Amino acid sequence: MSAFVKNQWYVAAYGTEVERGLLARTICGEPIVLYRTGTGRVAALADRCVHRRYPLSESKLAGDTIVCGYHGFTYDPDGRCVAVPGQERIPRTARVAAYPAAEQDSLVWLWIGDPDRADMSLIPRAPWLADPAYTTVRGMEPLAARASLLVDNLMDLSHETYLHGGYIGTPEVAETPIRTEVDEDARIVRVSRRMDDAACPPFYEKSTGITGRIVRWQDIEYHPPCLYLLHSRVAPAGALPRPDGTDPDGFHVEVVYAITPSTENSTYDFWAVARDFALGDEGVSQFLHESNRTVVLQDVGALNLLEQVIAAEPAGTQELSINIDTGGLAARRMLARMTAESQPEQAAVR
Amino acid sequence: MSAFVKNQWYVAAYGTEVERGLLARTICGEPIVLYRTGTGRVAALADRCVHRRYPLSESKLAGDTIVCGYHGFTYDPDGRCVAVPGQERIPRTARVAAYPAAEQDSLVWLWIGDPDRADMSLIPRAPWLADPAYTTVRGMEPLAARASLLVDNLMDLSHETYLHGGYIGTPEVAETPIRTEVDEDARIVRVSRRMDDAACPPFYEKSTGITGRIVRWQDIEYHPPCLYLLHSRVAPAGALPRPDGTDPDGFHVEVVYAITPSTENSTYDFWAVARDFALGDEGVSQFLHESNRTVVLQDVGALNLLEQVIAAEPAGTQELSINIDTGGLAARRMLARMTAESQPEQAAVR
Amino acid sequence: MSAFVKNQWYVAAYGTEVERGLLARTICGEPIVLYRTGTGRVAALADRCVHRRYPLSESKLAGDTIVCGYHGFTYDPDGRCVAVPGQERIPRTARVAAYPAAEQDSLVWLWIGDPDRADMSLIPRAPWLADPAYTTVRGMEPLAARASLLVDNLMDLSHETYLHGGYIGTPEVAETPIRTEVDEDARIVRVSRRMDDAACPPFYEKSTGITGRIVRWQDIEYHPPCLYLLHSRVAPAGALPRPDGTDPDGFHVEVVYAITPSTENSTYDFWAVARDFALGDEGVSQFLHESNRTVVLQDVGALNLLEQVIAAEPAGTQELSINIDTGGLAARRMLARMTAESQPEQAAVR
Repeated sequence: MSAFVKNQWYVAAYGTEVERGLLARTICGEPIVLYRTGTGRVAALADRCVHRRYPLSESKLAGDTIVCGYHGFTYDPDGRCVAVPGQERIPRTARVAAYPAAEQDSLVWLWIGDPDRADMSLIPRAPWLADPAYTTVRGMEPLAARASLLVDNLMDLSHETYLHGGYIGTPEVAETPIRTEVDEDARIVRVSRRMDDAACPPFYEKSTGITGRIVRWQDIEYHPPCLYLLHSRVAPAGALPRPDGTDPDGFHVEVVYAITPSTENSTYDFWAVARDFALGDEGVSQFLHESNRTVVLQDVGALNLLEQVIAAEPAGTQELSINIDTGGLAARRMLARMTAESQPEQAAVR
Repeated sequence: MSAFVKNQWYVAAYGTEVERGLLARTICGEPIVLYRTGTGRVAALADRCVHRRYPLSESKLAGDTIVCGYHGFTYDPDGRCVAVPGQERIPRTARVAAYPAAEQDSLVWLWIGDPDRADMSLIPRAPWLADPAYTTVRGMEPLAARASLLVDNLMDLSHETYLHGGYIGTPEVAETPIRTEVDEDARIVRVSRRMDDAACPPFYEKSTGITGRIVRWQDIEYHPPCLYLLHSRVAPAGALPRPDGTDPDGFHVEVVYAITPSTENSTYDFWAVARDFALGDEGVSQFLHESNRTVVLQDVGALNLLEQVIAAEPAGTQELSINIDTGGLAARRMLARMTAESQPEQAAVR
Repeated sequence: MSAFVKNQWYVAAYGTEVERGLLARTICGEPIVLYRTGTGRVAALADRCVHRRYPLSESKLAGDTIVCGYHGFTYDPDGRCVAVPGQERIPRTARVAAYPAAEQDSLVWLWIGDPDRADMSLIPRAPWLADPAYTTVRGMEPLAARASLLVDNLMDLSHETYLHGGYIGTPEVAETPIRTEVDEDARIVRVSRRMDDAACPPFYEKSTGITGRIVRWQDIEYHPPCLYLLHSRVAPAGALPRPDGTDPDGFHVEVVYAITPSTENSTYDFWAVARDFALGDEGVSQFLHESNRTVVLQDVGALNLLEQVIAAEPAGTQELSINIDTGGLAARRMLARMTAESQPEQAAVR
C-alpha cells in the first residue's frame, strides 16, 4: 500500500516561488516541475521527459514551453510534446502528465491523483495569509522524516514545553489537559487547550508587549492530509472576548502549516505565522520570523532524529500513548482511512 | 543474469597509468590490481589476498612481487603465492587470479571471463592513438552511472545540440537525419550523419581555423561492449574528398571512447581525441583537451542524474523512442545478445 | 540468527566517561544511555522513550531522573517512568529497560541479555588498569567494521610486521611460530609467541631504553566475546625471569582491548596499555599513547577497508588459513558456539 493519501490537494510551493524559471519539487513521490506561463498561470508537469527520462527541471524554458536539456523534446504547459529532434512527426503518445494546479491564499496547490477528480472547491482555506488585515512571516524547511512524524508533532503541543522551552514553551502547555473533537464528515480533527493563567513565553512577550501572566488559547484545526491551522489567542490574564464576539484585548496569531510528503521519508514543512497586531512592523516581523524558524528547526532536528530511530529499530516496536495523544491518534486514524480509500482496488482485497 | 558482457576485452587503463606502483581498478565488478614488471609487462591480478581478503592494491611491490600489506602473503606477476608468514610450506591453492592483459594503441586491455578463451586478435583497434601522424589529447572520467547510459548517449549525437550547445553542438546535428547499419557478423553498429551545410561549432572553429559554414560528417562505429569510434570530418562548405580518396581539404578527428563498466552502476569513461592537423601545436592541444573534457563532464553530469532517476523510478517505467534512436536501440540489442551468450548455462534454462 | 553473543558482559565505557551528563552508546545493536547518579552509581537505560521513541540521550538530567526532551516523560535510574505530561496517572507499563551495570578495573561493564542471569562474578579481570603499580595510557576508537574482524586481527599478531612496521612490528613476529591453547571450560583462547633474539621495535626501544637485541614474549589471553589481554614481556637478549618467578630484568606491558560490538558492522575498539616501568613518566606515557593510538588507527583503517571488501564480495567467498591462524580460528569457533548457545530456541530448531 502506498504511504500517501492520493486524490488530494497538496501545497507544492508558495506562489512567490513559482516564476519564469523551472522549480523542481517531488510531491508524494512524484517528481514535478513547476513554472509560471507568460499569462501568469501555474504549470505543473511530470518531471521526466518521455524520451530518455531526463528531468525537465534541468532544462530550459522557451516562451511557455520546456525544451528538454538532453535531446530537445519540447512540451507545452499542458504536457503535450510539440517538437522532437530530427523529424517532423511527433508521436501521438508523446506527452507528460500535467497536474491540476490552483493558487489560493498565497499557496500553490497541486492535485495528486486522478486529474478528473480534481475539484478546487475541496481545497481547505487559510485566508489570513493573503489578508491585508494580517501581517505574515513564513518559510519552508525540508524535513528528512516522514510526514506522519510532523503531524504527530503538531497535534501534540505539549512538546513545546520541552523542545521549545525559552521560545514558545512554558510549563502550562504540558500541564494543561486538551479537548479533542473529530468531525468525520468534514474531515477535520480539532484539539483545543485553554490556559487561563499562564506564563508569557518570549515569543509573545516581545511581539505583543504584554508583561505578566496571560490567557493563552491554542485551537488546532487539522484538515488531513496537508493543512494544519493553529488559532492562537493571547491576552493579559483575565481578558476574554466580549459577549458580542469582538475581542479588542486579544492578540491573534494564525499559525499555518502545510505538511506535504515529498518521498516516504522526507517532507516539505511549509510554515506561516499571520498576526493581527503590529501590522507592518518590520522589527516584530523579523523577530517572529527568526523565532518561529528556530522553533521549526528544533522540530526538524527532533523529527529527523526520530526518522533515524525508526529506520534502525526492529519492526513492531511499540509506542505508549496517553491523554495528550488523543489528537495525534485521531489524526492517524483519519489519515489511515483516507489512504485506504484512495486505493480502492487494494482495499477491496482485504 | 549478470549486468556485464563476459569473455570480452575491456580497457582498464592507459598504458601510461600502469607503472612501477599499484593501480586499483574494478572492471565488470571484479576488483583488479595492475602494475608493470621490471621487464615492462603489465601484470593484472585479482585485488584480494587469498588469506584474509586484504586488497593487494593497498600493499607494496617488492621487485616484481606484491607483498600483502596485512600479513605478508607474497604473489608473483602470475598470481602465484611465493611466500607466507611463519612457515616454509606454501599451500598449493594459494594463488589469485591473473587477468590476460594486452597493450595496444596506447591502451591496456584486460580479458574479463575465461582466461583460456582470451584471444588478442579480437581486440578492436584504435590505431590513431599511437600514430605519429596524429596528435592526441585524452583523459578518463569516472561515471556514477551504468555503462548503458553512456552507450545511449554516444550513439545518439542529437544531444550535442542541447547538452553541448556552445561547444560541439549546433542546430544542424539534431535536425539532420541519421543512417544506421548493423553488422551482426562483425558485431559493429554504425551510425552516420552527413551535414552538408552546417554552422561551425567553436570546438572546430578554433582548432581548424575555418570560418563560415562547413561540411560536417559524423561516422560512428561502435564495437560492443567497450570501444566506440567517431570518425569526424569537417571541411569548408562544398569541400569533399577527391575521387582518388585523398582529402586535402578535410580536417579529420578520430574520437575514441572506451566504455568500461566498473560496477553495475558506475563506469570508466575513457576519452581520446586524435587529429591530423595542427600536429604538435600545444595551444590547439590545450584548447581541445579543455573543450572535450568540458563536454565529457557535461555528459557525466547528465548521466549521473539519469542514474539517480532510474534508481528512484518504479520498475517498468517506459521510454519513447524515435528515429534518432535507431543506433542506440541497435546497440542495446547487440549488447543484450552478447550478455546472454556470455552466460550460456543460464541462457539454456529459459 | 543474531550476530551477537547475548547474555554476556560487555565494556560500554571507561568509568571516567560516565559522569553527570548523558552518554549514548549502542551495544550489540541496543541503543543505551548511560549516566552516573548523585550517589556515584552507573545507570544504563534503553535509549528510547516509551512514548514516541525519542532518544533519552538527547534529553536532560534532572537530579537522578531523565526528562525526555520531546514531551517530558521522566525516568528514574531503574527505568521507571515517574512523570508524564498533562495527567497525574502514570501508565503501569511506562518503563524502559535498565541494564545491569558494574564498574571494575576502571571499566564500565553492561550485561546484554536476560537481566536475571547477570552475574558480576563472570566479568573477566584486567586488574592492571586500576593498579597503582602500573601506569596506563588508553583510548577508544570507533570501528566501521564487524567485531569479528578485530578479533581476527588481534589473535594473529603476524600482521604487526606488515601493517605496523616501524612501530611495533619487526620481521621476527611474522617469522616466529606460535603455540595455541584452547580452554573450553574457562572459555579462554591462548596464543603464545616467544622470540628469544629479536630486533627491538621503536615502541619498546624508546619506552624501556633497551638498545640492541631483545627477548620478546607475546602471550595472548582472549576471553570471548569482549576482553583481550596481551601479556608482553621484553628484556635484553638472554635475560629471563629468575627461577623464583621474579623478573627484575623484564619490562612488562599489559595490553588490554575490549572489543564491543556496536551494530553488526561497527565496533567500539577500547585499548589500554599498562606498564610496570617508567611509572608516572609523562614523556614515556605521551610517547606510548601516541604510538599505540597510531597502531590502533592503522588497524582501524585496514579493518574498515576489509568491511567494505566483504560488503562488495559475493557470498561464500573463501579464505585460506595457515598455521598463524590457529588462534583466530579457535576464537571464531568459540564465538560461534557461544552465539548459538545464547539463542537456545533457534539452536533447538536445527
